[in-house]
Formats: sequence, structure tokens, C-alpha cells
Amino acid sequence: MDNFTFFNPTKIHFGKGQISQIASEVPAGAKVLLVAGGGSIKGNGVYDQVKEALGDRTVVEHWGVEANPDYDTLLPAVDICRRQGIDWVLAVGGGSVLDGAKFICAATQYEGEPWAFMQDFGASVKAALPLGTVLTLPATGSEANPASVISRRAIKEKLCFISPHVQPVFSILDPETTFTLPPRQIANGIGDAFCHVFEQYLTYPVNAAVQDQFSESILRVLIEEGPKTLANPSDYDARANLVWAATNALNGILGCGVPQDWATHMIGHELTALHGIDHACTLAIVLPELLEAQRAGKGAKLLQYAERVWGITEGDDDSRISAAITKTREFYESIGIRTRLRDYDVTADVAPQVAARLAARGTSAIGEKGDITPERVEAILRAAA
Amino acid sequence: MDNFTFFNPTKIHFGKGQISQIASEVPAGAKVLLVAGGGSIKGNGVYDQVKEALGDRTVVEHWGVEANPDYDTLLPAVDICRRQGIDWVLAVGGGSVLDGAKFICAATQYEGEPWAFMQDFGASVKAALPLGTVLTLPATGSEANPASVISRRAIKEKLCFISPHVQPVFSILDPETTFTLPPRQIANGIGDAFCHVFEQYLTYPVNAAVQDQFSESILRVLIEEGPKTLANPSDYDARANLVWAATNALNGILGCGVPQDWATHMIGHELTALHGIDHACTLAIVLPELLEAQRAGKGAKLLQYAERVWGITEGDDDSRISAAITKTREFYESIGIRTRLRDYDVTADVAPQVAARLAARGTSAIGEKGDITPERVEAILRAAA
Repeated sequence: MDNFTFFNPTKIHFGKGQISQIASEVPAGAKVLLVAGGGSIKGNGVYDQVKEALGDRTVVEHWGVEANPDYDTLLPAVDICRRQGIDWVLAVGGGSVLDGAKFICAATQYEGEPWAFMQDFGASVKAALPLGTVLTLPATGSEANPASVISRRAIKEKLCFISPHVQPVFSILDPETTFTLPPRQIANGIGDAFCHVFEQYLTYPVNAAVQDQFSESILRVLIEEGPKTLANPSDYDARANLVWAATNALNGILGCGVPQDWATHMIGHELTALHGIDHACTLAIVLPELLEAQRAGKGAKLLQYAERVWGITEGDDDSRISAAITKTREFYESIGIRTRLRDYDVTADVAPQVAARLAARGTSAIGEKGDITPERVEAILRAAA
Repeated sequence: MDNFTFFNPTKIHFGKGQISQIASEVPAGAKVLLVAGGGSIKGNGVYDQVKEALGDRTVVEHWGVEANPDYDTLLPAVDICRRQGIDWVLAVGGGSVLDGAKFICAATQYEGEPWAFMQDFGASVKAALPLGTVLTLPATGSEANPASVISRRAIKEKLCFISPHVQPVFSILDPETTFTLPPRQIANGIGDAFCHVFEQYLTYPVNAAVQDQFSESILRVLIEEGPKTLANPSDYDARANLVWAATNALNGILGCGVPQDWATHMIGHELTALHGIDHACTLAIVLPELLEAQRAGKGAKLLQYAERVWGITEGDDDSRISAAITKTREFYESIGIRTRLRDYDVTADVAPQVAARLAARGTSAIGEKGDITPERVEAILRAAA
């Protein structure tokens, strides 16, 4: 096991009716920016619950944060925060709204052009407004981590920044608020969380028994509860299990003291930046072929995954590894996420483009061993055509 | 799944050489009380590492915190803190030292006789000195939770208090510092952590898939890594896995949104208070017979445990439950912890005594369903004779 530091100070209020906890979590005199998406929270009662819990606090609302939140959509909110003396931010929505709010929190207290801290992955962020969140879409883990992914369509970019200053102070997860989500969004959430586990688990063994078993736990829960909650969206326990699994998939606990990959995410982000493919779908496209390409280096862990998650024990190493990769692809397909570029009307021409973009960014050799060169990225995407 | 709030703001530094992190975690101008046990940390180099990391900070040392830390041993340290203006406490040792330090932190800022907050289980604690810890014995989880168990031998009492004010700010876990511990202490740590999982897991099902699988993960890790680390104390990974398993067994994550029992601990504490039996040994005595007595109410979870942790799938429900209870007893025996009162020269006469003590304390009906009456406590202990 490698050395690690684990620190996750976000307070989680989980369950039915927990939105009322905002009343005690946000300071009484706070001047709050409420950040939201397209308006679905007005239809399902979440907005009303939030407003009631905020009581007579001053609240300024910023609507319209889109999927893959855009730099140019967020800058006006930064301006509002500065001009109106906002001192708390409350994000109400899915991972995109939360990520957008994190950007607003950091950018408001940042000197100079905020894109600079996107380009240094958050290293230059020295302060941020305090953030609370009400999560209405289980997927990204953003409710309990210090990461945020921001797109900038104007220049076809999608980058991630990480800063302890944007770790939410509190997050509220009421599974009932997610009952009305369309199946596609739930499926994307399942697929996103599944890949978050993979990025931290499916590398090479370092004898980290708790971390491995926790990762396998989350994978099994997603495999068992995912289809249940898709089939019956108002089954409270199944949805609650998905919500809590997605949080734990990326709150840091799985990645303690183990090597991490993240190549699938890095390649996937480029596909979203270039072609607007849903984030989870890009992961489903990249992951199976990346596993194929890395089967030598990832072999030991693929065999462990095959046995412990899928119960695959028959056959030689190679065939068990192949079976595990096939099961992974089939799982994505089974929840309605297609796994080939052609399913999204994208050709193999994207392969050299993505490779060149990663190379240009100086992130040319990615993966847990830094052995996925631009040439190999291109090969992975050609195989995924 | 039940509603829950999860909040664990302790920063964990885990691994080789991490004691040096004290230098950045304790404020430069702090006036520190260093709390320690009997002196083993001077033999294994831990004390020297701690002193070096503390640098030129003012440090007052309080030695002699014993296993099952005693109220009367701790009160002089409270006096030191008040008279010398101590503003930080650093506990260096096992769970007893950490629990003792938590008491010191709370008592220093408490008005009136500190025993009062032991009697209200911490409810009246409104402030405490900040606490950092260096854990040298994996067992109690005290390094990452707000609980502390204090004994008062003068009146044969052993009570637990819980307060968010004594949650450690940071904890340092270097598995290498535990290599020189005697096997009995490591076995006790394994047995203690095992029972911590049971108190949160082995109740009745509420469809909490992540929590169940995380609990089963910790149990399997203790079963697999426990004997390994006993056989080879300086196998770093095995010891690291035990340390991290013990922390996760009681950092709150397993108990989120599930019913909890704690009857085994409550009965066990009385055995320690009356007869000075090691804490983990009291759990090993009580747990198997408590499971027998509760096999109706705990049946569904016992069957799940039988299959997922021990791979028991043959036979009818009753025989699988019996097999799982037997496996539990055998596990304790296999790591050298005896499971009968007679193994500790205690007779069944203790049974009515313990029942009467619990009844007198107003905690007469314990367990996750509040159905373990004094009569049933007595029966459990008679069966454990």
C-alpha cells in the first residue's frame, strides 16, 4: 500500500426531507447565490423546499448552468458575486451545476483571468466562497470532493480543476428528489460512477485490501441496484443505494494509497469537447478498448475483478480477462449506454485529433504507469470506432 | 435505508514516515500537551520522531495513561492544561491513550465535575481543546471518531462519551510503528475491530447495499489479513491493511443509515469494569452467545453474513445460522482470544451482577430493537460461562 492523506470534511445529510437542513447549515446572515440548471427543480418541488429552508436570507439566483458547464455561462455569476457581495454559494442540481458552482466560488476570489486556474488544474486557487450543495442527480461525486470539470465551447476545451477550497461544506442528498429524472440521466450516472471506481481500482495490485474490497463493493452495488432503479425509479432503497454508491465512488476513499489511472476520463473529455457526447457515454466508448490495450499491465487486477465482481473463475488467464472486459461492455450496453463511436455518428477520424490534443497539452503519456502515449490513445480510439 | 448525517472531518496521514506531518498540522505557536502511555513509544523511536516534528513548540508531557484509561489518572492532566495554558493536545499511543486525551480535551474546557459529562454520554460537552493523534495500535477507531471510553476504577465504572468537539483534527497512522506490539495486543485489535463491524452490520436488513458490502469487506479483510499480520508482524502490507480496516470499522461510514446494536459492547464494558478483562476479550465472550440469543431477530442478517463472509451456502436456515455463529467464535479463538468466562476465571455469578448494573443505569433494554432486557443479559452471560 502506498502512503496517503485522506481528508473529506464535507458534511452529508442523506435521506428524505433533508433539504430542510439548509436552515442550520447556511449562516443566518449569509448573502447567498443559488446556482441552478434548467428549471427541473421547480417542477419537482426541490426549489420550494430550498427557498423555504433559506428563509429570510438574501438570495440571488443564477439559472441556466448546462450539462458540461460552460466557462462563458459561469462568468456572469462571478460578476454577480463580486458586485453584490455574495458570501455563500448554494448549488442545487446535478454534477454539472455543482461543478459550475465550484468554479464560481473559486473565480470570485481569484485575481486575474479565471481560465488561468483551469490551465494549472487548480494549483493557483488560494481561496473560494463557501459552498453548500443539494444534489439531484447521482453521478459525479462532486457533492463530496474538491474537483470540478468545466467546458469552454468557444475554444472546444474541457478541463478539470481540483482545489481543497471548493470542497463543499455540506451536501444534501435526498434520493426522492431524483425520482423524476429521465432514464438516460440515471443510466449516465450509473455509468459515470462505475468508471470512477475503475480509474482508482483497475490498475495494478499494491496489496490494498480494504480499498480493493470497497471498490468491488461499489461495482457490485452498481451492477445490482442500477438495473433495479432504472426499472422502478420510485423504489426508494434502490435509488438511495445508487446515490450513496455514486458518492462513495469519488469521495476519495477508494483511491487512498493506490495507483490511479484516469486515462479513460482524459480521453473521454476530449470526445465531449469535440463532439458533445454525454460524459458517461464517452467513458463507455473508451473504457473497454483501453482495458484491451492495457491487458498486460492491468492483467492481475482484471483477473481479480473478473472473479470478485463477475464470478468468472473458468478458463485460462487470457480468456477470463477477455470475459471480464466483455462483461464491462455488456454492462454499459445493458443500461442503455452504447459503447462504440459509430453509435454517436463519430468516425475513427477523431482518433488522431484526440491524440494530438492530448500531446499538445503536455499530457502525452497517461495512465497509472504513464505508458499510454498519443500513438496508443489513437489506437484505442480506432479500436472503439 | 434510514436517513443519516455523515461528517468525519479528521485528516488522516497514513503510511511510512508520516509522523513528520505533525510539523505542519500543529500550529507553530501552540502550547502542546503530549499524552502517552507506559513508555513503549520511547523504545520504538516514535517519541523521537514526534519530538522532532514538534520542533521548538512548548511541550508538556503527561505519561502513564493505562489500558482502559482511568478518570483519576487523567484529572491531573486536566489540571496541567488549565494552569499552564495548554491550547493543543497530541495523543501518542493506542486507543486508550487517544480516549484519555479526548477526555482531557473536553474536561479542560468543562465547568464543574467532569464525571457529569460521562454520565450524560457527552451531551453537556460544549467545547474542547483541539486534538491530534499518532496511533500506534490498530483497534478502536478512536483516531477518526468522536467517541471515548473512560474507566473509573474507584467506583468500578466504565462509560462512553461522544462529542463532535473531541473528533481529532488530524491523525497519523504509520503501520511500521506497530511492528513491535505484542501479539496479544494485535489480536485484541483485530477482535475489537471485528466486533465494531458487527455492532453496525449484524442487526436486521434495511436494504443498505453499500453499507452492508463495506461491512462485509472489513470483516473479510480482518479474517484474511489478521492471521497474516499475527504470523509476520513486520509484513508492511498486512499490517497496513489491519490498521486501515480498524479505522474504517469505526469511523462512522459503516453505520450510515442502518440500525445499530452495541449491546455486546455495553455488556462487555461491565465485565471489564468488574473483572478487568481486556476489552476485546469481553466482546469475544459476549458476541457468540448474544448472536445465539438473538438468532430470531438477527436471522436474515446472519444468513447474509454466513454466505458473503464465510461462503456458507449448504443446509437449512437454522444450520447456516449456527455455522456462522460457530465460525465467529472460532475466528476469535483462532487469533488467540478465548471466548468463555471460565477462560478468564470468572463464574456465572457475574451474570446477574451485570444485568443489575445495566438495569440500574436505566439502559435496561438494549440492542437494535431494544429487546435485550436485564433477564436476557443474564441469560446471555450464563450461556457464556
